Amino acid sequence: MLVKQKLPLSYLFNMIKVDVVRVFFFSITFNIFKFFFSDYLPSMPAQLPTVLGTAISLVLAFKLNHSYDRWWEARKIWGSIVNDSRTLILQLKTYIQTDVLGYDETGKFIQKMANRQIGWCYALGESLRGLDNQATIHQYLIPAEAGYVLPQNNKPYAILALHMRDFKELLNKQALNPFQQVQLDSTVSRLVGYMGMAERINSTVFPVTYRVFVHFFIYLFLIILSLGLVETLGPLEIPILIVIASTFFLIEKTATYLQDPFVNMPTDTPVTAIARTIEINIKQLLEEPDVPEPITPEDFYLK
Amino acid sequence: MLVKQKLPLSYLFNMIKVDVVRVFFFSITFNIFKFFFSDYLPSMPAQLPTVLGTAISLVLAFKLNHSYDRWWEARKIWGSIVNDSRTLILQLKTYIQTDVLGYDETGKFIQKMANRQIGWCYALGESLRGLDNQATIHQYLIPAEAGYVLPQNNKPYAILALHMRDFKELLNKQALNPFQQVQLDSTVSRLVGYMGMAERINSTVFPVTYRVFVHFFIYLFLIILSLGLVETLGPLEIPILIVIASTFFLIEKTATYLQDPFVNMPTDTPVTAIARTIEINIKQLLEEPDVPEPITPEDFYLK
Amino acid sequence: MLVKQKLPLSYLFNMIKVDVVRVFFFSITFNIFKFFFSDYLPSMPAQLPTVLGTAISLVLAFKLNHSYDRWWEARKIWGSIVNDSRTLILQLKTYIQTDVLGYDETGKFIQKMANRQIGWCYALGESLRGLDNQATIHQYLIPAEAGYVLPQNNKPYAILALHMRDFKELLNKQALNPFQQVQLDSTVSRLVGYMGMAERINSTVFPVTYRVFVHFFIYLFLIILSLGLVETLGPLEIPILIVIASTFFLIEKTATYLQDPFVNMPTDTPVTAIARTIEINIKQLLEEPDVPEPITPEDFYLK
Amino acid sequence: MLVKQKLPLSYLFNMIKVDVVRVFFFSITFNIFKFFFSDYLPSMPAQLPTVLGTAISLVLAFKLNHSYDRWWEARKIWGSIVNDSRTLILQLKTYIQTDVLGYDETGKFIQKMANRQIGWCYALGESLRGLDNQATIHQYLIPAEAGYVLPQNNKPYAILALHMRDFKELLNKQALNPFQQVQLDSTVSRLVGYMGMAERINSTVFPVTYRVFVHFFIYLFLIILSLGLVETLGPLEIPILIVIASTFFLIEKTATYLQDPFVNMPTDTPVTAIARTIEINIKQLLEEPDVPEPITPEDFYLK
Amino acid sequence: MLVKQKLPLSYLFNMIKVDVVRVFFFSITFNIFKFFFSDYLPSMPAQLPTVLGTAISLVLAFKLNHSYDRWWEARKIWGSIVNDSRTLILQLKTYIQTDVLGYDETGKFIQKMANRQIGWCYALGESLRGLDNQATIHQYLIPAEAGYVLPQNNKPYAILALHMRDFKELLNKQALNPFQQVQLDSTVSRLVGYMGMAERINSTVFPVTYRVFVHFFIYLFLIILSLGLVETLGPLEIPILIVIASTFFLIEKTATYLQDPFVNMPTDTPVTAIARTIEINIKQLLEEPDVPEPITPEDFYLK
Repeated sequence: MLVKQKLPLSYLFNMIKVDVVRVFFFSITFNIFKFFFSDYLPSMPAQLPTVLGTAISLVLAFKLNHSYDRWWEARKIWGSIVNDSRTLILQLKTYIQTDVLGYDETGKFIQKMANRQIGWCYALGESLRGLDNQATIHQYLIPAEAGYVLPQNNKPYAILALHMRDFKELLNKQALNPFQQVQLDSTVSRLVGYMGMAERINSTVFPVTYRVFVHFFIYLFLIILSLGLVETLGPLEIPILIVIASTFFLIEKTATYLQDPFVNMPTDTPVTAIARTIEINIKQLLEEPDVPEPITPEDFYLK
Repeated sequence: MLVKQKLPLSYLFNMIKVDVVRVFFFSITFNIFKFFFSDYLPSMPAQLPTVLGTAISLVLAFKLNHSYDRWWEARKIWGSIVNDSRTLILQLKTYIQTDVLGYDETGKFIQKMANRQIGWCYALGESLRGLDNQATIHQYLIPAEAGYVLPQNNKPYAILALHMRDFKELLNKQALNPFQQVQLDSTVSRLVGYMGMAERINSTVFPVTYRVFVHFFIYLFLIILSLGLVETLGPLEIPILIVIASTFFLIEKTATYLQDPFVNMPTDTPVTAIARTIEINIKQLLEEPDVPEPITPEDFYLK
Repeated sequence: MLVKQKLPLSYLFNMIKVDVVRVFFFSITFNIFKFFFSDYLPSMPAQLPTVLGTAISLVLAFKLNHSYDRWWEARKIWGSIVNDSRTLILQLKTYIQTDVLGYDETGKFIQKMANRQIGWCYALGESLRGLDNQATIHQYLIPAEAGYVLPQNNKPYAILALHMRDFKELLNKQALNPFQQVQLDSTVSRLVGYMGMAERINSTVFPVTYRVFVHFFIYLFLIILSLGLVETLGPLEIPILIVIASTFFLIEKTATYLQDPFVNMPTDTPVTAIARTIEINIKQLLEEPDVPEPITPEDFYLK
Repeated sequence: MLVKQKLPLSYLFNMIKVDVVRVFFFSITFNIFKFFFSDYLPSMPAQLPTVLGTAISLVLAFKLNHSYDRWWEARKIWGSIVNDSRTLILQLKTYIQTDVLGYDETGKFIQKMANRQIGWCYALGESLRGLDNQATIHQYLIPAEAGYVLPQNNKPYAILALHMRDFKELLNKQALNPFQQVQLDSTVSRLVGYMGMAERINSTVFPVTYRVFVHFFIYLFLIILSLGLVETLGPLEIPILIVIASTFFLIEKTATYLQDPFVNMPTDTPVTAIARTIEINIKQLLEEPDVPEPITPEDFYLK
Repeated sequence: MLVKQKLPLSYLFNMIKVDVVRVFFFSITFNIFKFFFSDYLPSMPAQLPTVLGTAISLVLAFKLNHSYDRWWEARKIWGSIVNDSRTLILQLKTYIQTDVLGYDETGKFIQKMANRQIGWCYALGESLRGLDNQATIHQYLIPAEAGYVLPQNNKPYAILALHMRDFKELLNKQALNPFQQVQLDSTVSRLVGYMGMAERINSTVFPVTYRVFVHFFIYLFLIILSLGLVETLGPLEIPILIVIASTFFLIEKTATYLQDPFVNMPTDTPVTAIARTIEINIKQLLEEPDVPEPITPEDFYLK
């Protein structure tokens, strides 16, 4: 997630440089044409850029809206992961009958599950971003469990299966009553759901034909605008066109970047920082000693 | 679902060729008219195309929005099918008391239900697309159950009835406690719901009068724009009009294709690939040997 | 619901004929005026129709959006009715302990409840459309129950009360366990909810002042456009204005018709066809002999 | 809620008369200025009203959208109140074991609770509208309970506390099983929720800076439009400007009125009529004798 | 939250003064340029400001929409906090078996939990606004509990952990039955959820690139409009441009302020006033003596 303070101009410029250079070249070409063949150029009627400008603004607004919705949904999903991770630990602390396992064992057990839940958050973030999550799984899961999880394609799903297996054991030992097991099961089912929702956003390509015609449409608009401006403004048309083009391309790229919030880029949903928040909250609640520091933005974004 | 990399231009062109050819002919006609009867043609006032352009852009934006919403809802429904299929298997693994049926029998039972659930996903996708799902049912269901399902119109519904019947049996044998049965029942009820939601999108025609007037409106706009441009631009009007028309028709067709996500076309929700993902996840979780490969896009789309 | 194939032009024309005739008369009037009193007519500035055109397009887009939302919500409600009717029957089949009532009695009991549920769907559709539902109630309910339902204003609500009464009886006879009764109760509560949601759409008038000013605004726009066009286009203004007017009125009427989806018109939500689908699904699931045919569109719409 | 049939023009006129009179005066002033100081007036460039017209149309569309959403949400909340009031009575009828309290006592008890629920609906409507609800509470609650409710600020909340207290008593007497008590509790929790949702809409002011600049913006637009029209149209500008202004102000006022649906005005959500519907449904279901008539619109609105 | 009555103009002016001063300077500069170098200035074509005006209006509308959605979601979250705080107290009053703890002890216990819940509301509001909540925690929690809560980063989460711990104790003492404990747990889980949702809005920066280009785009539009107006209007261009600029900047700032509803500014969600309402409702329901007064707006906003 980009943060407010330190966004470098170079970042913005890099987003649009290829397109701006193209615009620069065709507007220069039109100027040269005008200079040499002024008489042969048709005069572009004024209503054309107006009509196309309205249309392109609307389709860009549409793209921006739905891209924002994907981005915001991704953030909401991770917000829900925060909530249900916290809830899960509260429920474990409340539900498990200490006298069944003994006070110390219960504490260790909850700690094991808390670590696993924290590991799940980090591992899910890494999975979504296409990163390797082997190290994470070794860090937060005990070896036996890591051995079950690692061979599977969908490692976060396998981690949740371990949660469920432990609930079964607790129920069988009567450390949980049946209501509580069902309640914990509901919490884990919701986590299964969030995982699937994040995967859905990740694997669903924004309609491709749409992406194509928006890009094409912006160029069409700029070319016709350029032809219209070159007559009245002459060479002054070049900087004006470039400034206008930059704005439209910035909107387009902003939208495109918002569409895919789990691709390991600065505009990503900050899944690592969120997982860290969960780790801090849970460890403090359990009064564990090794509470890490929150992740703060290095440079201009939070990873 | 169209994928990012390899969209062929011919695909885009095929979407709009009929309309573009029509535009080509009427813009040529106007040019010939202008050439021979220049004096008799009224001059089209400039504000007309502007007004119509704004209006058509707004109604297209409306169509695009609601078509996108249908498409995204369809994808969400299938995302939920992923989630609750995974949840169902987790619940079965956790809930069933191994000592009632014996360890091996329980394993076989879960495997039977997992196969049936996987079969349900494939069969639902085929039903929605109007394809025959007999082969799928024979592959994933045991013969006795296939015999119950095949004569029915709504085969996926019948498959879920088999799930429910099995839960009843498990409850009667006390391999499930009553809470767990109710919880499993809730999961299956949600699957009934997703099935109905997908059917709803499939069977509800996007308002027809709307479809008619949008198409009619685009032509009206292009004709008036053509009459306006022919005077200032002459023959150059033909290519410009065709490029503009292509953009508007591309928007219209993109929207129309998004409206119906279960019609066995490249723009479909990739139900087969999703069902395959479910199959892989479930089989790996149950540590079964015959895990298939994920479906990858052949050509330019994922089926 | 209008279907794709056979929409007659006469239907579209009937929607807008009154308004189009009015437009025809005032545009003729302006032409005559211009012919005789050309010098006295003020020339309408070009920006006026543009400004009004943008404004009217936006308010029409607003109206279209919210009308579509009402229509789509109505369809979703009926989709949910499909889902929970199917769920209810699945639950009854799964829950009821056959040994309490005996195998045959249980079958008959479920059949009675299934019929009542089917009857509820038809009766609700008829209620919403303001039709008499006496025949339906006599057909699907046993006489004693019909006697309870018929005197009430809200017959569908009374039918659901019969469901609930039967669940109580089953619980008292221990043919249901308490969890299952609560689960069935939740399903019926949802049906109560859908009924109320459909009634809400039916009884809530779309803001009336809004309806008034949209209609007024379209006329204002057309009159000013007409005054603007009459100078440049002369009599040719009449057909052009009529074509433009038709498009705007078509949008307005389409929106108005979508607003009220339960008024026994061709644009209605196809509640009878949906109820029939439910009947077919349920009866096939229970392997009953008298399964009816699905309703197919007669003419150009599905009722 | 305004109804379709009889909306008087005077009502519409009263909404906007102050603003229209102001517009009348400044457009007359501009005409007089033009008559005497024609040479000194600058000519307003044509693109200014176009740009401002687009901008004001978009911000009005925004205001209309979100006002409509508030209004529709208010209506949905009251729809949910209908649904859960009906559900509550169904549940009470189904759940309470008749043999614990005796048949007659049970009947009387349900009747008492039904009256209290009906009273809650009326009282909540009155609370939201800032009306006194003492009479209502005396009418529908028994004196002892009215004594508990009346001193409190939030009377509807206190009424629901009485419901909950009665459930506790029923549970203690074993007239309810624990599942049923929890289910009833969920229904009442939802009612607590709807009450809070309606209060939220009532107490949250639509962003004030927004209201200010929309109003200011419309005047700015009309003044600039007036200056533009006065040159070409002369005195004819006055009626045209007034008609256009009326339309814009009508949109603005319609939106403003929709924003606050519980302020005892004709555009309110018809809470009294809805409460009456609930009363009729519940009393007919319980086969009580004193069923009142539905409320029909007097004049042009339903209160 | 700004209130309707007393919004001072100075507040509005302060929002936009920096930007307006900038606009003042560049429009003066253009006027001076025009005066001295009139012949060298290119004439800005009329369609440019129109096209840019439409585009900037659409992106502003987009920003306004999503900012409003954040603001409204924040208000909804706090509405839900009201609802579930009320529900929690109702449930405690209904569920706890008085005979287990004794009548007086039960009363004291509920009072302690009610105070803690009220404290949670105040403390959450303070946390979100980045204020110190030590005083609040000392006021509403008993010392032993304050000692557990204060060292933690996320104090509201720790307070909810105390709720859960008490439920466990009540269950163990059989003052709650297992159903009721699960129901209370669900209520607290929802509170955990609302807390996380408010934190999500607080910690998620509205897309930064978007913020940058909107600001840049408004300046671009105003500069080009200024260059266009300076030719026809001369020095009169300065006040007109400033008025138009003020409107656009007011829209932009209104949107920016709505985006962040928990930053201790006048446009905040009124979390302190809402927490006070909860305090009043709960204390009156429990018939406690020390009910405070509602918070009324001092100046022009409710804090």
